Amino acid sequence: MINKTLFSPSGIVVVGGSENISKPGGKIVKNIVDGGYTGNLFVINPGRDMVQGVASFSSAKELPGDVDLAILAITAHQCPAAVRELAELRNTRAFIVISAGFSEEGEEGALLENELRDAVNSLGGTLIGPNCIGVITPVYNGVFTSPVPRLNPAGCDFVSGSGATAVFILESALPKGLTFSSIITVGNSAQTGIEEVLEYWDESFDVSTSSKIKLIYVENIQKPDKLLKHATSLINKGCRIAAIKSGVTDAGQRATSSHTGAMASADSAVEALFRKAGIVRCFGREELTTVASVFMYNELRGKNLVIITQAGGPGVMLTDALSDGGLNIPALEGADHDRILKMLNPGSSASNPIDILATGTAEQLGKVIDYCDNEMDEVDGMIIIFGSTGLTTVYDAFDMIHEKMQNCRKPVFPILPSISSARSEVEEFLAKGHINFPDEVVLGKALTSVHNTPKPAGENVYMEGIDITEIRRIVETAMDGFQEPGVVGRLLKAAGIPIVEEGVAATRRGALRIARRIGYPVALKVIGPVHKSDVGGVTLNIKTEAHLNAEYRRMRKIKGVNAVLVQKMQSGMELFIGAKYEPRFGHVVLCGLGGIFVEALGDHSHGLAPLTFDEARSMIRSLKSYPIIQGIRGTEGVNEDLFAEIIVRLSTLLRYATEIKEIDLNPLLGNQDYIRVVDARMLIEKT
Amino acid sequence: MINKTLFSPSGIVVVGGSENISKPGGKIVKNIVDGGYTGNLFVINPGRDMVQGVASFSSAKELPGDVDLAILAITAHQCPAAVRELAELRNTRAFIVISAGFSEEGEEGALLENELRDAVNSLGGTLIGPNCIGVITPVYNGVFTSPVPRLNPAGCDFVSGSGATAVFILESALPKGLTFSSIITVGNSAQTGIEEVLEYWDESFDVSTSSKIKLIYVENIQKPDKLLKHATSLINKGCRIAAIKSGVTDAGQRATSSHTGAMASADSAVEALFRKAGIVRCFGREELTTVASVFMYNELRGKNLVIITQAGGPGVMLTDALSDGGLNIPALEGADHDRILKMLNPGSSASNPIDILATGTAEQLGKVIDYCDNEMDEVDGMIIIFGSTGLTTVYDAFDMIHEKMQNCRKPVFPILPSISSARSEVEEFLAKGHINFPDEVVLGKALTSVHNTPKPAGENVYMEGIDITEIRRIVETAMDGFQEPGVVGRLLKAAGIPIVEEGVAATRRGALRIARRIGYPVALKVIGPVHKSDVGGVTLNIKTEAHLNAEYRRMRKIKGVNAVLVQKMQSGMELFIGAKYEPRFGHVVLCGLGGIFVEALGDHSHGLAPLTFDEARSMIRSLKSYPIIQGIRGTEGVNEDLFAEIIVRLSTLLRYATEIKEIDLNPLLGNQDYIRVVDARMLIEKT
Repeated sequence: MINKTLFSPSGIVVVGGSENISKPGGKIVKNIVDGGYTGNLFVINPGRDMVQGVASFSSAKELPGDVDLAILAITAHQCPAAVRELAELRNTRAFIVISAGFSEEGEEGALLENELRDAVNSLGGTLIGPNCIGVITPVYNGVFTSPVPRLNPAGCDFVSGSGATAVFILESALPKGLTFSSIITVGNSAQTGIEEVLEYWDESFDVSTSSKIKLIYVENIQKPDKLLKHATSLINKGCRIAAIKSGVTDAGQRATSSHTGAMASADSAVEALFRKAGIVRCFGREELTTVASVFMYNELRGKNLVIITQAGGPGVMLTDALSDGGLNIPALEGADHDRILKMLNPGSSASNPIDILATGTAEQLGKVIDYCDNEMDEVDGMIIIFGSTGLTTVYDAFDMIHEKMQNCRKPVFPILPSISSARSEVEEFLAKGHINFPDEVVLGKALTSVHNTPKPAGENVYMEGIDITEIRRIVETAMDGFQEPGVVGRLLKAAGIPIVEEGVAATRRGALRIARRIGYPVALKVIGPVHKSDVGGVTLNIKTEAHLNAEYRRMRKIKGVNAVLVQKMQSGMELFIGAKYEPRFGHVVLCGLGGIFVEALGDHSHGLAPLTFDEARSMIRSLKSYPIIQGIRGTEGVNEDLFAEIIVRLSTLLRYATEIKEIDLNPLLGNQDYIRVVDARMLIEKT
Repeated sequence: MINKTLFSPSGIVVVGGSENISKPGGKIVKNIVDGGYTGNLFVINPGRDMVQGVASFSSAKELPGDVDLAILAITAHQCPAAVRELAELRNTRAFIVISAGFSEEGEEGALLENELRDAVNSLGGTLIGPNCIGVITPVYNGVFTSPVPRLNPAGCDFVSGSGATAVFILESALPKGLTFSSIITVGNSAQTGIEEVLEYWDESFDVSTSSKIKLIYVENIQKPDKLLKHATSLINKGCRIAAIKSGVTDAGQRATSSHTGAMASADSAVEALFRKAGIVRCFGREELTTVASVFMYNELRGKNLVIITQAGGPGVMLTDALSDGGLNIPALEGADHDRILKMLNPGSSASNPIDILATGTAEQLGKVIDYCDNEMDEVDGMIIIFGSTGLTTVYDAFDMIHEKMQNCRKPVFPILPSISSARSEVEEFLAKGHINFPDEVVLGKALTSVHNTPKPAGENVYMEGIDITEIRRIVETAMDGFQEPGVVGRLLKAAGIPIVEEGVAATRRGALRIARRIGYPVALKVIGPVHKSDVGGVTLNIKTEAHLNAEYRRMRKIKGVNAVLVQKMQSGMELFIGAKYEPRFGHVVLCGLGGIFVEALGDHSHGLAPLTFDEARSMIRSLKSYPIIQGIRGTEGVNEDLFAEIIVRLSTLLRYATEIKEIDLNPLLGNQDYIRVVDARMLIEKT
């Protein structure tokens, strides 16, 4: 319900604006004035005609005309009435409430917050906050905090679930020269949360005017579906998104909960959501602002980079960081190497990193950059490391970098370490609209985490051979609790998931009949409310009718056993697929090698249902034990496509059966020809 | 051969000093003058009486008296004569040669460098460089570069193998407020390299006056033994050392080699060396200067930290970073929680992170810090996050933090994010000698990497039951190449390493005799210049004499087979221990679970021989598959002490037999009662 007037109001009234710039109401007036807002600005402050040079009125009624946007810095209990009055008398439809004292302070405040939200909703208006630091757009600086960053229509759009954290993120952005297009802090998110801001960015996106960089700081994802939908859509429209979701570790989740008052989500669900959407996940402010800085430059088309440096050491450290993260710094050889070397002073190196030495000139730098841009098709981008020894200024080199950055077809990333001894040169460079990466390793890590974030997953749900009607019928008639093998088997079959040949028998003859049909050897497993391996309820490799008879009789004497499962003995490598329903997010699907690999090594990867084939394959390939799946030491391994297909089919099944709260296919056994479920456990809860 | 006059010369002469501060010879005079050097300062520059206000002479002969230290900024070929003249006429014994044009530029320069080194060596003097940026000590600023950092006797001692990298490391140190005690760049290390500087630091160490923080940037470790010895000794004397060794990845090693012209060492050897010495390894400049900043504060006694913050988000991100790295942010409960909560404004949280809110006062902050320092024994340190919203100044809060940092028994780490909007407050805080960590996650990672670096290993070599005389006898009589099982077996026995019962037979009767002695079942393996599994040369589980007869006959017909190995069949979990001789470093010893774990998952850990029991145990525990060694899923696992003992014994064996270039014990088989070597491969090369 964000409307455009929030971003470009023709008039703003600060309700509670004052002379005291140590208070939010005073400081926000100052920031709007200092920011050069060109629309009509008013203050409502009874008893004053003028506040900081701005016309002040005692109430909405006194205002000279309509006002698009109101910023409220008055006590909480005054807010609902102020909203109603402005809406009625001055046609105001956008409200930023910076006042605190609402739901964050208890039940009474929560009631007030509901009243406020209802008041705005009934107008079809926009409400930001309450309990936020405000909004910055290219049109006005509507925050009461410092610092206010440089604004630029192509800069970052930034939404934050925490005002103080937003302020500190700006502190980290400023020295880098990072610019912003808009900043929205959502405070208590009474009406407008992170997800609604994403929705607005998506729906109002204009490829020629909108910024293509979106940053998010979020502590609690309330509407994962909405976030996924709009993040995916924005990225598909050409945007790049980076986000911090704090509360990753157990201790961090406890800290988030005590801070936001909301239950934290399992981090695996967050991780899976971000990967599905194609959001670059960051874990700190420095990292977020560095990734955002990378976003300000053109995207790398491939993974081959040339480093052009004036100092060996930083070149080596950067090579390590990039290479560690999967980017290439290909050795230059042959004609390219020789031609570049000829451009340089004696003692230089042209093997990549290209070391032009501390005595290398701006002109040499320019020539090398041009050569990499024009003559070397296999190179996807250049990173320049250029500092000052303190002997001379480096304006000429920085001017050269500036010129090349504007003219090169390939991205050029500047690392200018001399932030003290070449301070004025760096400042001049930033003033031209560039961003500096003072530390090569920090840039290297940011580049690789951008590189390693997948594109958004496709949205098609795989349906081939999946019988939704049958799935719904089975789930709807199932009782709550862990399901018997028959139910599990029928559900898996309805999803087209192959299970080992098996049958359930409640009589000895029935068991024999099944064994005859599927062929010996068979395994026999008890069915009933017992833990089958604890009661001796599993016998493998039964090769004869006599043995089957004996085992059947023994098992039926075990207390609680009401039938047996007769399964064909299956050979193959042990695999595992599981899923857990995560409230709001849906099912997080896990896969891995079975047995000790998942139990002892914890080697599994995860994704958010429903999954595409690409996602399933990427899950399989990100396993540490992937080489074993591929087959090593002369073993044949497992058919990756079949494994991926089962993961995809299970994820579709779960999407249509959210009543399944937990499912474990463990083990599946497989080789190059088949993969079949041998044992499965499924919990259904319909409430 | 560093002498004290290098650090506190009573007189300095700059040979080649000039008026031109765009050249090293001019800038170094300026830096010495600006740095307020109080000794006698002269210049040698023929044809000038005065240079930048400093008395200048045409030659050493004209100087008015003796001079301790000479800094040479003249052409390379003039340097040897200048050294000899100053030594003879002016008793100079310390030389810093910043001139380039030596070994880095080819053979002719290398000869000149040798001449220079020999000239200084023959005097018993000190030579720093050539081709370096100089030296900074509290007495003089002997570098030609900027920036010059704040000096402080308790600041960092820093040695760098690269001048330009040192300059850029200082750029990263400066904004943090990091101070230095001395800086030495070794250039071409003609006489004095990184290792000699460490030796000097160690041998001149004075617990009451020396700095306890040492930083190293190194691209090529020439003398690992020396580095290990002095780093260990310094740390045992109370120092803390952090180092960057660049060239970690394959691409990075290629980059180092092309930059330094020297063969890179295997990074596993470097990693093992640093862990053995107790050096905190860093991978970038930002990381190094952050770890150095952590070193400026008292060491954490334990791993429990309290975070006191004014903003929820950074507290959560910091909790994640610390917890991810193995530090604890214990939840506060009960009386402590309630007492702290009472000190704070409504809405605050006292559960750790303690969130005092943006409205929290300096006084509240002080009370909470005092409570954590005095009343909570289980807390080992505090981290304070305090920024500015831009409404008011934060001098009072920073003063409170300053006061508490001085008086608290436990370390207090300040995170002050508002480097822009509270710039002057932060500067005032730094001016009091403190260091600021502007980003909480960067600090969190530095704290955990310090926490996770082990103390230096003990230096005792384990000798019990190891027969060095026998080991030397066997090695000295062995031929070069891969060794036969008999030789390997005798060597392992001499080191007290248990091997499976076995014997070598060249006749059928001999084989039968061995089998009778050790008992059936046995395994039979061919011996000879063949790859035994390729030629069908291994038969397991032979239970009868008839079977043994038949297999023996079959195997002896295989071409190249000259004997057989009869081994008792052994059961147990597969383990693996290997080692490789790394030139200069010695043997890097690897261990892990055998089979697919080491082959497919690459799960191994490594250490540098000789190893202590503590090191061996730490290697075993750092395996990802450690839970399997401990025993899971009802398996008994493997006796960790026995495994550690074999690792230690092998490492002692290797220390006394450096001719062994490669050895693989693979597999060893073991359980809780025994571990025995089943197969071993050993390469001896004496050249």
